[in-house]
Amino acid sequence: MPELLPEVAALRLVDHHCHGVVRRDLSRDGFEALLTEADGPSPLGGSLFDTQAGLAVRRWCAPVLGLPRHAEPEEYLARRAELGHAEVTRRLLRAAGLGGLCVDTGYAPRPSLSPAELAEAAGAPGYEIVRLERVAEEVAGTGVSATGFADRVRERLAGRVHAGGGRTAGAGQGPEAEAGGGRVVGAKSVAAYRTGLALAPDRPGPREVAAAAGRWLAGVRPDAPARLADEVLHRFLVYAALDLGLPVQFHIGYGDSDVHLARANPVLLTDLLRATAGAGVPVVLLHNYPYHREAGYLAQVFPHVFADVSLATHNLGRRAGALLAEALELAPFGKLLYASDACGLPELYHLGAALFRRALSELLRAGLEDDSWTERDAGRIAGMVGAGNARRVYRLPA
Amino acid sequence: MPELLPEVAALRLVDHHCHGVVRRDLSRDGFEALLTEADGPSPLGGSLFDTQAGLAVRRWCAPVLGLPRHAEPEEYLARRAELGHAEVTRRLLRAAGLGGLCVDTGYAPRPSLSPAELAEAAGAPGYEIVRLERVAEEVAGTGVSATGFADRVRERLAGRVHAGGGRTAGAGQGPEAEAGGGRVVGAKSVAAYRTGLALAPDRPGPREVAAAAGRWLAGVRPDAPARLADEVLHRFLVYAALDLGLPVQFHIGYGDSDVHLARANPVLLTDLLRATAGAGVPVVLLHNYPYHREAGYLAQVFPHVFADVSLATHNLGRRAGALLAEALELAPFGKLLYASDACGLPELYHLGAALFRRALSELLRAGLEDDSWTERDAGRIAGMVGAGNARRVYRLPA
Amino acid sequence: MPELLPEVAALRLVDHHCHGVVRRDLSRDGFEALLTEADGPSPLGGSLFDTQAGLAVRRWCAPVLGLPRHAEPEEYLARRAELGHAEVTRRLLRAAGLGGLCVDTGYAPRPSLSPAELAEAAGAPGYEIVRLERVAEEVAGTGVSATGFADRVRERLAGRVHAGGGRTAGAGQGPEAEAGGGRVVGAKSVAAYRTGLALAPDRPGPREVAAAAGRWLAGVRPDAPARLADEVLHRFLVYAALDLGLPVQFHIGYGDSDVHLARANPVLLTDLLRATAGAGVPVVLLHNYPYHREAGYLAQVFPHVFADVSLATHNLGRRAGALLAEALELAPFGKLLYASDACGLPELYHLGAALFRRALSELLRAGLEDDSWTERDAGRIAGMVGAGNARRVYRLPA
Repeated sequence: MPELLPEVAALRLVDHHCHGVVRRDLSRDGFEALLTEADGPSPLGGSLFDTQAGLAVRRWCAPVLGLPRHAEPEEYLARRAELGHAEVTRRLLRAAGLGGLCVDTGYAPRPSLSPAELAEAAGAPGYEIVRLERVAEEVAGTGVSATGFADRVRERLAGRVHAGGGRTAGAGQGPEAEAGGGRVVGAKSVAAYRTGLALAPDRPGPREVAAAAGRWLAGVRPDAPARLADEVLHRFLVYAALDLGLPVQFHIGYGDSDVHLARANPVLLTDLLRATAGAGVPVVLLHNYPYHREAGYLAQVFPHVFADVSLATHNLGRRAGALLAEALELAPFGKLLYASDACGLPELYHLGAALFRRALSELLRAGLEDDSWTERDAGRIAGMVGAGNARRVYRLPA
Repeated sequence: MPELLPEVAALRLVDHHCHGVVRRDLSRDGFEALLTEADGPSPLGGSLFDTQAGLAVRRWCAPVLGLPRHAEPEEYLARRAELGHAEVTRRLLRAAGLGGLCVDTGYAPRPSLSPAELAEAAGAPGYEIVRLERVAEEVAGTGVSATGFADRVRERLAGRVHAGGGRTAGAGQGPEAEAGGGRVVGAKSVAAYRTGLALAPDRPGPREVAAAAGRWLAGVRPDAPARLADEVLHRFLVYAALDLGLPVQFHIGYGDSDVHLARANPVLLTDLLRATAGAGVPVVLLHNYPYHREAGYLAQVFPHVFADVSLATHNLGRRAGALLAEALELAPFGKLLYASDACGLPELYHLGAALFRRALSELLRAGLEDDSWTERDAGRIAGMVGAGNARRVYRLPA
Repeated sequence: MPELLPEVAALRLVDHHCHGVVRRDLSRDGFEALLTEADGPSPLGGSLFDTQAGLAVRRWCAPVLGLPRHAEPEEYLARRAELGHAEVTRRLLRAAGLGGLCVDTGYAPRPSLSPAELAEAAGAPGYEIVRLERVAEEVAGTGVSATGFADRVRERLAGRVHAGGGRTAGAGQGPEAEAGGGRVVGAKSVAAYRTGLALAPDRPGPREVAAAAGRWLAGVRPDAPARLADEVLHRFLVYAALDLGLPVQFHIGYGDSDVHLARANPVLLTDLLRATAGAGVPVVLLHNYPYHREAGYLAQVFPHVFADVSLATHNLGRRAGALLAEALELAPFGKLLYASDACGLPELYHLGAALFRRALSELLRAGLEDDSWTERDAGRIAGMVGAGNARRVYRLPA
C-alpha cells in the first residue's frame, strides 16, 4: 500500500458531523449492532464482521489497541474488554487526528459521551449541531398552543445558539463545556426519515404553520415522546434555522432500516435549494450514498450547497476511494467536507478518518501520477476538503 | 491477466438462478437475439457481437469449443453448428464448474432443457425455482371461483414443493427427475414486470384477495393465456410462498425492453421487506443493475435480504469486476450470491461463471495487495459468496 | 500518462451535439460562469477553477495557448486576453481534431458563433440541430390559431430541414452557409427542462394538440417571449420530427440549476421509446449523467436508441474514463456517440475531445491488456464510437 500523501497525513481533519459513543463495554452482539446500519447479526446472514466495515475495523483499529493488523474478531473484542471502553475511546479518537468536531446531539438512544467529553478524548475543540425536530418535539412537550408554536420553536432554537456563546467544548473550557454543551454551529433536519425529502420550496406562512402544529399537537400524547413527521413543520424548521444564519444539515440516503431510500434522494430537495440559494446560508447534504453523484451535482449548481460522504466512508472500507472519487466528479473541491458520522463505537471515528485520508490521498496521487494537477494544487485541495471548507461553512476558528 | 486466486478457481459455484437453454442449432440472428436483452441486432445499431457480452463470448467461449480466443463471430457460429447444440451445451455447462443449479422453470418461450437435463449437462445437482405468477395463471385456467382462488393457489404451490420431495434433478435420480422436475427450493416473483415493485407491505386479507381475483378472473379469456398483473395478487403470492418457508426471489432492475426501470428499483420493496423481516424466510433480489448499490443497502439493513448481480455479470463482460465491487460495498459477504441468470444460450452459463470468478478474484486480490484482509479472510469470503450463502438460503446439501 | 492508442489519436471525432461560443473576451468571473453548470463562483464555495473541469482547462488548454501545462488561472486568463477570443477559438476548435460538428442553435443567450463560423474555426463540416420547442415558440409568436398550430409547426420544421438542403456549413460553402445555417440533420427536445421526461407514449391526436395549443397560446403575452411547457405539445413535437425522419435528441440528466434531476431520468422515457421503436428513426439521449448506466440500458434494449456522455465528459475531467466505462457497460458499441456539448467557451470543444480520446483510449487499452479483445476489435470500436455511429445516425457523408 502506498504511503499517504504528506499533505494528507498531516491534516487535522474537521469532523463536521458525528455523534456520541457509548460509555460502556460491549458484548460481541452489542458491538456488531453498532458496527453497520443493520440492527445486528442475523442467523441467515452471519457475522457483521464479514462486511467491508468489519474487515476495516480489524485492519485499522486493531493496531491502535496494540494488536496485530487483522486480529480475529474474538481477539479484538477481548483486547477491547481488557483495555476498557474509556481507554479504547481515548485511543481511537486520538488516532483520528482531528482538528475539530461538530457533534449532533439529537440522537442518543444509549448513554453516550457529550461533545465536551468527545472533544477531550479527541484533543480537539468540539462544537454542537442541534437537531431541529428534537427542538420542535421538546416544545410540543411543553403544552404550547398551535398559534404559539412557531415563536416558541424560534426562541428555543435561538436560545440554543446563544447559550453556547463563544464557548467551545473541550479541555479547560469551563463548567458549561464540561457539562456537555458545545457552541452550536449548525442545525440538522431528519425530514428524510419522517416525511421524506420532497419538501415544498416556499417558507410556510404563519397560518400554515399554526394549522400544521395544531394537527400535530392534537395527536401528541403526554405518556409518549412526541415524534414530528409533517412536511410543513420540517420546512418551517429549516427556514427557522436559516433565518438564524445556521447552516442546515440534511440526512440524505444511507441510514438504517427506518429510512426509505426512495424518499431520501437529494434531488428531491431541488426546489427547496433553489428557493433558499439567495439567503447565502450553507445547506449541507450528509452521507448521500448511493446518491453521492446527485449530491455532487447539487453542490456544483447551487452556491450554498455542500456535501459529504460520511457514514458510507467507513462502511465501504477499502472502497472509500471509489466513493470519494465519484462524489468529487461534479462537486467543486470547495464544496466537499469531511465527516465520519461516527455513532456509538469510537472505532468509527478512527475508521472514518483513516479511510478518508486514504481515499483523498489515492485521489490526489492518481491525479499527480497522470499529470492532471500539480503538487501545489493537491496540497490546496487536501486542505480545503479536510478542514478549510468546514471551517468556512461553520465559521470555526482556524 | 493475473491468474485467478486459487480459492476462487477451485470453487464449485452454486448458480442459484438460471433458466433452460434452447435445444436446437442457431442462426446468427437467432444467436444474437439470445445474447443480450435486446430483441436482436438492429440495422441502426449493428451487430450485438459488438457489445461487452459479444466480445466476452469470443474471448471466453471460443476456447471451450476448440477455437482460438477472440475467434470472429462467423467462425464461432460455424464451429458451434459443426459441434451441434447438444455438444456445445455439454461443453459450456461443464466448463462453468458448478456445484449446483436452481432453475427457474417459469419462462420458456422456446423448447428448452429441463432442470434434470441441465443438471446432467453441468454434472451438478439441479433444483427448481417455481414462478409464482405462473402458478396463479395455471389456477386461473382451471375455472376456479374468486373465493376459491387463494386456497387453490396455496394448494398448488404446496403441491409443487411436495412433489419434488427430497429428490434432486440429475443423472441417476429416478424417473421424476428425468422427466424434468427438480426439488423446488424457492419461488420467484416477476411483479417488477407486471405492476412494478411498489407493493404494499401487509399480507392481503382473504376478502381483498378474493375481490382482486374476481376482477382478474373476469377478464381472463379461455382462448388466451392468463397474465397476472395485480398488486394485491402479486403480494398474496409472495406471502403464500413465505408461509411455506420458500425463499422468494424478485426480478429487480435490468431486463428486456418490457421492464420499466422506474418501477423495478429495489428500494420500492422497502416497506414489504420491513413487514416480512420477522418471518425469517430469505428474500433474494435478483440482477439489480443499475441499482445494485441500493440492493446492497437492503441486504445490509434487513436480516432476511440477499442479493446477486446475475444477468449483468455476463452482459458487462470485463466490467463485471466493477459491478461486483459496487454490490459488495454495503452487502455483507454473507448476503451476496452467485447466479448467471443464463437463459437460452449455454454460453451464458460459462460466461457468468467465468466473469464472476474473475471479478471475485480481482476483488479479493486487490484487498490482499493493499493489506485490507488476510488470505484466510479471502478464502472464507470466496466460499460464502460462491456457494455457502446459496446453500444456506435454499437449504441445499453441502 | 500512457500515450493514446494510435487509432484513437488519429480519429477525426464527429461532435454530434455542441453549441456556439461567445464572440468576446471574458473576465475571470465571466469565464468561470461559463466553465461548469454553476452560474458562477460563490463566496461560500470559492473559485470554479477548483473543480475537475477547472483543473482540466489548466492541464489541457494552457498548452494550446502556448503556456506550460497547469498554468495558474490568472496566467491563463491573461494569455487568453492577449491572444484575443478569435484566435483562442480558432486554436482550441482546431485542437479538438473534429471531422464534423452538429450545432444546436436553439439556445443562445449571448452573441455566439454560428454553425458556419464554428465549422470554419474547426476546419470541419458543420450541421445544424433544430430545437423543437424554439420552433413552436416562434410559431406561437405569429398569432397562429389553436387549430392551425400543428400544421404551422410541421411546415416550419419541414421548412428548416428543406432550407438547409444538401448544403453543409463551412469554408467555401456559399452564402447561406456563411450566413450561419448548416444543413439540419436532427432535432432536439428540452422537455426535461420544462415538464420533465415522463411523456405519455402515444402520438397525440389533432384535437388533443389543438386543445393544448389553445391553452398555451391563451397565456402567451405579446411583450414576453413564449415559453413552452406542455406535455402534449412536447410529445407532439417529438412525433413531428420523427415523421420527417429527423433523429431526435433529448436533454437528459445533468444541466444547470434549472433542471430537476428527478424529472430528467431517461427511464421516464421508457414508454415513449417503446412506442416509437417501430418508426426506425434514431432517438439520442444526451449527457445522461448520473443516469448514464440507465441510458446504456435503453440503448441496448431499444433498436433506435443511442446515447452520449457529453457535458459530463469535460466536467468530470480525469474521471471521464470512469464515466465512459460505465456508459459502455450495456450500451452496444454501435450505440454510443461522441459529443462535447460545448457551449460558450471554446475550451470545452477541446476539453471534451481530449478527455474523450483519453477515456476511450484507456478503455480500449485496458481491454487489450487483459486480453478481453483484439487490436482489430479496438480499432473498429474506436471508429464506431468516435465517428461512424454519428455518421450513420445523422446520415452524414463519410
